[in-house]
Amino acid sequence: MTFSPDLSDPFVATAVELRDIFDRDAVARDKAGGRPVEQIRLLKESGLPSAQIPKRYGGKGASWLSVLRVVREFARTDGSLAHLYGYHHLPLNGVLFRGTEAQKDRLLTRSARENWVWGNSGNAMSKSSSARRNGKGWILSGFRPFSSGSHIADYIQVAWEDGQDRLAAAIPADREGIVIEDDWDGVGQRQTGSGKVTFKDVHVGDDELIGSPAVPLTPFQTLTSLFQQAVLLNLFVGSAQGALSEGRDYTNSQSRPWVYSGYEKHTDDPFVQRKYGDLYIRTLAAAELADIAARSLDAAYGQGEALTLEQRGQTAIDLATANVYAGQIGLDASSEVFEVMGARSATKANGFDRFWRNVRTHTLHNPAEYKKRTVGIWLLTGEFPVGGLYR
Amino acid sequence: MTFSPDLSDPFVATAVELRDIFDRDAVARDKAGGRPVEQIRLLKESGLPSAQIPKRYGGKGASWLSVLRVVREFARTDGSLAHLYGYHHLPLNGVLFRGTEAQKDRLLTRSARENWVWGNSGNAMSKSSSARRNGKGWILSGFRPFSSGSHIADYIQVAWEDGQDRLAAAIPADREGIVIEDDWDGVGQRQTGSGKVTFKDVHVGDDELIGSPAVPLTPFQTLTSLFQQAVLLNLFVGSAQGALSEGRDYTNSQSRPWVYSGYEKHTDDPFVQRKYGDLYIRTLAAAELADIAARSLDAAYGQGEALTLEQRGQTAIDLATANVYAGQIGLDASSEVFEVMGARSATKANGFDRFWRNVRTHTLHNPAEYKKRTVGIWLLTGEFPVGGLYR
Amino acid sequence: MTFSPDLSDPFVATAVELRDIFDRDAVARDKAGGRPVEQIRLLKESGLPSAQIPKRYGGKGASWLSVLRVVREFARTDGSLAHLYGYHHLPLNGVLFRGTEAQKDRLLTRSARENWVWGNSGNAMSKSSSARRNGKGWILSGFRPFSSGSHIADYIQVAWEDGQDRLAAAIPADREGIVIEDDWDGVGQRQTGSGKVTFKDVHVGDDELIGSPAVPLTPFQTLTSLFQQAVLLNLFVGSAQGALSEGRDYTNSQSRPWVYSGYEKHTDDPFVQRKYGDLYIRTLAAAELADIAARSLDAAYGQGEALTLEQRGQTAIDLATANVYAGQIGLDASSEVFEVMGARSATKANGFDRFWRNVRTHTLHNPAEYKKRTVGIWLLTGEFPVGGLYR
Amino acid sequence: MTFSPDLSDPFVATAVELRDIFDRDAVARDKAGGRPVEQIRLLKESGLPSAQIPKRYGGKGASWLSVLRVVREFARTDGSLAHLYGYHHLPLNGVLFRGTEAQKDRLLTRSARENWVWGNSGNAMSKSSSARRNGKGWILSGFRPFSSGSHIADYIQVAWEDGQDRLAAAIPADREGIVIEDDWDGVGQRQTGSGKVTFKDVHVGDDELIGSPAVPLTPFQTLTSLFQQAVLLNLFVGSAQGALSEGRDYTNSQSRPWVYSGYEKHTDDPFVQRKYGDLYIRTLAAAELADIAARSLDAAYGQGEALTLEQRGQTAIDLATANVYAGQIGLDASSEVFEVMGARSATKANGFDRFWRNVRTHTLHNPAEYKKRTVGIWLLTGEFPVGGLYR
Repeated sequence: MTFSPDLSDPFVATAVELRDIFDRDAVARDKAGGRPVEQIRLLKESGLPSAQIPKRYGGKGASWLSVLRVVREFARTDGSLAHLYGYHHLPLNGVLFRGTEAQKDRLLTRSARENWVWGNSGNAMSKSSSARRNGKGWILSGFRPFSSGSHIADYIQVAWEDGQDRLAAAIPADREGIVIEDDWDGVGQRQTGSGKVTFKDVHVGDDELIGSPAVPLTPFQTLTSLFQQAVLLNLFVGSAQGALSEGRDYTNSQSRPWVYSGYEKHTDDPFVQRKYGDLYIRTLAAAELADIAARSLDAAYGQGEALTLEQRGQTAIDLATANVYAGQIGLDASSEVFEVMGARSATKANGFDRFWRNVRTHTLHNPAEYKKRTVGIWLLTGEFPVGGLYR
Repeated sequence: MTFSPDLSDPFVATAVELRDIFDRDAVARDKAGGRPVEQIRLLKESGLPSAQIPKRYGGKGASWLSVLRVVREFARTDGSLAHLYGYHHLPLNGVLFRGTEAQKDRLLTRSARENWVWGNSGNAMSKSSSARRNGKGWILSGFRPFSSGSHIADYIQVAWEDGQDRLAAAIPADREGIVIEDDWDGVGQRQTGSGKVTFKDVHVGDDELIGSPAVPLTPFQTLTSLFQQAVLLNLFVGSAQGALSEGRDYTNSQSRPWVYSGYEKHTDDPFVQRKYGDLYIRTLAAAELADIAARSLDAAYGQGEALTLEQRGQTAIDLATANVYAGQIGLDASSEVFEVMGARSATKANGFDRFWRNVRTHTLHNPAEYKKRTVGIWLLTGEFPVGGLYR
Repeated sequence: MTFSPDLSDPFVATAVELRDIFDRDAVARDKAGGRPVEQIRLLKESGLPSAQIPKRYGGKGASWLSVLRVVREFARTDGSLAHLYGYHHLPLNGVLFRGTEAQKDRLLTRSARENWVWGNSGNAMSKSSSARRNGKGWILSGFRPFSSGSHIADYIQVAWEDGQDRLAAAIPADREGIVIEDDWDGVGQRQTGSGKVTFKDVHVGDDELIGSPAVPLTPFQTLTSLFQQAVLLNLFVGSAQGALSEGRDYTNSQSRPWVYSGYEKHTDDPFVQRKYGDLYIRTLAAAELADIAARSLDAAYGQGEALTLEQRGQTAIDLATANVYAGQIGLDASSEVFEVMGARSATKANGFDRFWRNVRTHTLHNPAEYKKRTVGIWLLTGEFPVGGLYR
Repeated sequence: MTFSPDLSDPFVATAVELRDIFDRDAVARDKAGGRPVEQIRLLKESGLPSAQIPKRYGGKGASWLSVLRVVREFARTDGSLAHLYGYHHLPLNGVLFRGTEAQKDRLLTRSARENWVWGNSGNAMSKSSSARRNGKGWILSGFRPFSSGSHIADYIQVAWEDGQDRLAAAIPADREGIVIEDDWDGVGQRQTGSGKVTFKDVHVGDDELIGSPAVPLTPFQTLTSLFQQAVLLNLFVGSAQGALSEGRDYTNSQSRPWVYSGYEKHTDDPFVQRKYGDLYIRTLAAAELADIAARSLDAAYGQGEALTLEQRGQTAIDLATANVYAGQIGLDASSEVFEVMGARSATKANGFDRFWRNVRTHTLHNPAEYKKRTVGIWLLTGEFPVGGLYR
């Protein structure tokens, strides 16, 4: 019941090692934005990108709990890398869930072997790209916003509208015509590359199409939107933990008692003690809810295609619950911790504000208001949310 | 991850049955105050009073987790019975921890066999009783406030000051000279009998003394103050759950949509959904923290006299954490749920306000402020609270 | 900028004298429920019931600011009398706004001279009474809930549905067939008599009808729903002030320092200071918003029939603003103040919980959620709420 | 009762014109940091720097209410200029309060005529500069942190420790040896130049010393710390107003409804309406408390040397009250408004996050915790804070 990561989990242990490396220049990279090239190299070297790939494709078959705890550890210092690692699993599992056996054999096996990092250039809420037929394939043009991870990816998911349908495909990130605009301008999550990707007559083969709009998703296949939820909320939890850990260290080593406190040490002031206690308690609650949700996700995932709508629904409620809670403490901890660090802490050199900027940026993608309603509707009526974007 | 009690635990299953009986007149008994005589009879009949007594004394060896979940179930409708059942374990474990082998054989065995209910007439924060020597015993006079449970107890703990020392003894509740004043006037916890007990020359034999002030408490023996914490916080959690369950039922069956809502059903109003979602999320977090704390308590208790100060300290932090959180949601849920039930819900006949009155009353005994500081100090410095009253 | 009432206002000065008398047995009367007969006698003797009646009818022409500050003073100890006095102005102004000149001459003049207290037996949200024609009048039957003040009134407003219309009339409270059921069972506002009034063939003359559904309300005439708002919110403000004043006195005179505080006086504990500071600051803000709203109401009222929809709308926004704020601090102050008074404060004898019960009960009639939306819509779009019940 | 500035106040009217100019590149300048050279030129041209200088020295004798409302207007888009303009009055009034008649004649008259802007290079909480005697003056060396405004000032206050005493002087900002380090690195208030000023053997004449440590401050003279409070809190209020205004415009013009809202316009979603309503209500309360505090300050200032400790104390309470409230809503509005603007709003190009960064940075200088205690102590005991830094 502390923030201590469970080092008996080898994925977590690896993540902690990487986190300590990422931490060395996390503040500088937050300022710089752009691409965490060296960090992605280390990530790939660590093998974590293939952690969750099923063993039958050469992956390590890690649980979602493990993967999400990795996200959390990264977020303790670097929300961007947490995001990139977590979201990498979405297009990857898109292939796993909807790809043909041939596609899975080809893509997942190589992904596992080479520790590919996947990006997303097919934002599901935009309709800004299109394609025309060209032989046994398509020529893709237009652009897609919020293309997180495409700037450092080996493989990306692309998407376009085809009449009422949305088609998606998995292609190499270096395919001719793919232009990473590097125009991400968010106030937080600065190295996620969540800007635009432009498609200049990009060829996509029919055999690169993943799934078909004609085949409706099974309950199991709708789990991908819950994976996304899970990444988001663990990023919030890790950010709260990071803000609190960095805050504690600063307070212990650098904060001065308030001029009228009457205490020699700032940490003897009851208001400092209370604030840390309060933030810890809520952060711990968030971490527990996150673990429960992760286990619920593992249980649902473990059902495979036998997953019922009801179990899928219950998992969605678990994730919504954890998400609301995590977002709030993410915001509160990252803002309120300044109050007990003191005036000298709020510098760009210290970079403590990156936690608030990261959480503030990311929480907007998935409004807590609607999560609360989802949980409330279920509590009142027993109804589960219909699977779909962010739910 | 719902409020559903774990019915695979036989103690919990029994508690749920009792709870449903208690629920029939919980509102009426809250109004009446006084003694829940029939309910205590049923409680004894159920065998729950001997649940936690070690098997070697004829008890059932239930875990603290089980006992505390029983407290929680009772609190979903009746905070007084939750309190009486929970606090019963304090004098009982006083004997277990500090009694002689002879006392344990005698008192615990009979307690187990006859399902005694224990009360406390020895409030540790008062110094309002005294005793003089009389042969091989003492003659006790004065009084003790906050004597919860003495009004329905088989056996009670009494205490008095002897110079700088505090002596405690276990005696039958019907010992001559014991006067239950029945003057409890709290705004909540109306049937706990937490008023005064007067001692009119009550004889206490030397062999009834429990422990000796000359022998300092071991870390293990200081666990009793954590048991008390644990009871308190589970009462808060159960109260929040009860307020929310009763609220949901009322909203579903009786609440009308607000005149300007535009909805035909009140439960379709987003603000109603949001409020229930929000309260549920926080109540669930409280229940999870409570379970974690209970398991931590079981682990510490399981160490017996091998318990280290550090493990005892960590358990104290776990309990403080859960306590703060539970008290807050107990207050919030019991007050805010009215906002989505509507104006007609706030009647004495409905009695929904008893949850707020119960939590408000009980939270005052153990200020959240100091719990937060305790957790904060530990987070900042690693220091654990010294064992003692309420910590 | 304190809670000190403005004694230079003679109405307020009178209210303060009465408040001190009401205070003597406010706790006992809260327990007893029923009718504050002696207090209403004193109220009438004081002349306050005719304060707001225009001078041309023999009243004293008091401003709404004065009247509402009287409400606030009463609410500092007795929410019921605050409510009765405040709501008295609603049927009274019904006559002023919609009565014929003859009715005004007759009813207002006598009301002013004899300091009548008016009650409401015509709850606007129910449709539970009806009437049949009978010569030059009607025979009224059925009942009306939430008939606040009818139990101590000289004159009451009654209402019934007539097809799609709602007819209202002003009749003496002792008219044959009027049965005050004395069945108010709210958890708060215990002496407001807000239960049912049954009509057993009550005769109502045509000349007792007030207004006609055929004549639409002018903006000026819709001010009555704002008067109601204003009463509600000042009751909340006064309750917060009362909770805080009584709390301060108790803390200063009776609270003991927490066992681990290290302070000799409870008031030296920073958490006690902080809590009182925090509650004071928010209570003061509420009082200021209430004053602004009252002045806005006076300005609108002063326009008479020249009042435009826009100025009426702005006043509605001012009242909604003050209302939301007041309700929240009313709840917070009345609950949180216990935390700094301590465990012994929460007794029925002290009766401090009446403030929470009063505010909790009364806030439900007019959900803050919808007030916030009203203000938000206006901020976003410039649209004002359409006049109507509670807005 | 809206955010509309009172344009009948000529100082406010001028401020609004400037604000609109400042607004054109406020986001860009926030990013750039450094010196708002052109804006300071315009400020001087407007005559506002001499607004508050008494008429007898050629100033305009503006009230504190006017000055503080100017601060508030600037803060609606540019916290740095609000800060610079507000804090300019501190060294200026240092001369007025403690200067000799000759100094006042000389410095205030020229300041008024030339619309000097004053900066502060004598931070009162540091002891990092010293001076040695040199003929009829001193040679100053060392540095001072948090030297807001020195980078754009005409005249600055400097200070140094002399044994137990602190000496202060007013000198031209371009005096030889003054080095503006331009090293301000705060996460907010980016153009305030609140970094270090180094003194390389700076000559200070005896006739430049302002006041003497041997002469204790009168209650009147301790008002300067309240001026500082007042500037801070109005900056918070203006920031909340700015965040809310910019948010409203963005929501109205650019926000899209949430994908599952069922509304065509985002502003029709009840949660959007509620959030804007809620933030507006609290921002309005803050503005009202700020106005009350400003008037209290004007009243105290108007007493001159007749000001009693008690009236000074009451004004300190008024300011502490307004400060706590303003800081909280400043933080809440600037963070929560994102939730109703949506994911695309959180870009550096939009720059909406500058409000949170500004308030977060500035609130740390003057902890709300201690303000609450100050108010609480006064409420409990009637004791006023002793005049001093930040109180």
